[in-house]
Amino acid sequence: MAALARSVLVTGSNRGIGLELVRQLAASPRPPQHIFATCRDPEGPRGKALKELAAQHASIKLVQLDTVNLPSIRGAVGAVGSHLKDQGLNLLINNAGVSSHATLRSVDPQEMLAVFATNVVGPLQVTKEFLPLLEQAAKGTGKEGLSCGRAAAINISTKLASLGLCLGVPEAPMYPYRASKAAQNMVTRCLAAELQDKGILCVAIHPGWVKTDMGTEKAPLTVEQSVRGILTVLASLSQDASGAFLDWEGNCLPW
Amino acid sequence: MAALARSVLVTGSNRGIGLELVRQLAASPRPPQHIFATCRDPEGPRGKALKELAAQHASIKLVQLDTVNLPSIRGAVGAVGSHLKDQGLNLLINNAGVSSHATLRSVDPQEMLAVFATNVVGPLQVTKEFLPLLEQAAKGTGKEGLSCGRAAAINISTKLASLGLCLGVPEAPMYPYRASKAAQNMVTRCLAAELQDKGILCVAIHPGWVKTDMGTEKAPLTVEQSVRGILTVLASLSQDASGAFLDWEGNCLPW
Ligand SMILES: NC(=O)c1ccc[n+]([C@@H]2O[C@H](COP(=O)([O-])OP(=O)(O)OC[C@H]3O[C@@H](n4cnc5c(N)ncnc54)[C@H](OP(=O)(O)O)[C@@H]3O)[C@@H](O)[C@H]2O)c1
Ligand SMILES: NC(=O)c1ccc[n+]([C@@H]2O[C@H](COP(=O)([O-])OP(=O)(O)OC[C@H]3O[C@@H](n4cnc5c(N)ncnc54)[C@H](OP(=O)(O)O)[C@@H]3O)[C@@H](O)[C@H]2O)c1
Repeated sequence: MAALARSVLVTGSNRGIGLELVRQLAASPRPPQHIFATCRDPEGPRGKALKELAAQHASIKLVQLDTVNLPSIRGAVGAVGSHLKDQGLNLLINNAGVSSHATLRSVDPQEMLAVFATNVVGPLQVTKEFLPLLEQAAKGTGKEGLSCGRAAAINISTKLASLGLCLGVPEAPMYPYRASKAAQNMVTRCLAAELQDKGILCVAIHPGWVKTDMGTEKAPLTVEQSVRGILTVLASLSQDASGAFLDWEGNCLPW
Repeated sequence: MAALARSVLVTGSNRGIGLELVRQLAASPRPPQHIFATCRDPEGPRGKALKELAAQHASIKLVQLDTVNLPSIRGAVGAVGSHLKDQGLNLLINNAGVSSHATLRSVDPQEMLAVFATNVVGPLQVTKEFLPLLEQAAKGTGKEGLSCGRAAAINISTKLASLGLCLGVPEAPMYPYRASKAAQNMVTRCLAAELQDKGILCVAIHPGWVKTDMGTEKAPLTVEQSVRGILTVLASLSQDASGAFLDWEGNCLPW
């Protein structure tokens, strides 16, 4: 099996789904040459597990990246660019996100805007700033069509963002989280439409309900299962997946 | 024809679609008893046209309401409540909104959050604060089922919020506007699911592309045509429209 991509960047990779993405990518039979494992504070206590993982794999490069801080994003673009020389970044995975269980009764404007900043503005700004590196990869790989091996921006979404399904609202209203992820899906759709002519694939992926700090112990899926699924789906994506909303098993979800 | 509702409140009613909603409601053969025409600055120069209109109709009450300012929302709830005595508010129309033509290249985090504040947090907070008055109306009218005559929150959305259609993105990317209105649609969906058992109808309405400051002179529809359509659709809404996304002609739009 060919490597998924020569270079991959994951945001929010110090725990949860992000950490497991880095772990499985590094442990794969043909790992990417460069795995940029980014998080807010690689040197702090929250970066400990990631730092230990990186110590075992030369492919993993730790990079500081706070997705809501523009100077931090630009610093990361600089660091990643200097590693890649002129080959560009193939695969950007916008995984960092925050939840919010605010109900209609408890919702607060400031908290809602903070959730939008992380879940919508963050992925958009990160994609925008890494675009020159993605474009470089799209041009440089000598590949035709769209794929993660050429150039792609993957946004980790959620089934709770589906307006069509609108799952279990009265039991789990979660207004800020749902609204932010529906908005994030629109960003994915717009990016897909705008970037496909540049050879860049954009897809929204629902990881399932996963046992992480966010998903809690009640979730049915382990992080290993979810990430194995996500990586299999990513490897299979081609032109016709541009702008799709898929789950970790590759099923299409309704908007 | 029966009145659409005994009491109606419109946000952003000093110009554009909001002003025309107030105008047509007041001029209808059986106008609502109370039309709460709200805007940011009823006494300032931007409130002039609305003030002139109100001078001609006893049904129109001017109320200050800035949809992104919580004390202002609460002040409006107090003013409206004291007019209504204990009959509650039947119909809330969340019309106030802002556009943004920011492209991927020009998008700026602060501007994007400001658009979210007005287009998503605003309608949610306004509905939340007016909820006691809507619940009062839902209980008090002696009506069964859902309708604008009983109790309803209508959010003015846009076809550009449709993820399914994802109309003309490369020509008109408008990331912040599209993302905010997709998020607003999710708010409408969640409200519809949560409030239907309380007898409150929630619907998202696309007004068409309309000649207003926002829609520009290039738009095909006059504000009279759009609003005539919207009011006809509102009068026809019943139980099965709860959580729907409709245009000014009553057509269902894909999420
Ligand atoms: N778990 C589920 O069941 C589930 C279901 C559907 C979708 N998702 C989505 O999957 C993604 C990952 O979720 P998870 O379950 O792994 O959540 P998690 O365990 O709570 O981890 C969230 C990650 O995002 C990072 N993060 C948050 N804000 C950030 C910022 N401003 N800059 C950089 N990193 C930031 C966190 O870093 P810190 O440690 O610094 O906070 C952490 O690494 C999210 O987008 C989430 O919405 C999860
Ligand atoms: N025109 C179109 O083609 C079109 C198409 C689809 C959807 N829409 C939607 O229709 C609605 C009305 O649009 P329009 O065309 O009438 O736009 P408009 O002519 O630009 O008027 C916008 C109105 O919203 C008010 N507003 C903005 N922010 C506010 C706030 N924080 N508090 C209170 N009021 C506020 C404005 O008040 P100020 O005068 O104080 O700024 C103004 O009255 C919007 O939700 C828009 O997204 C319009």
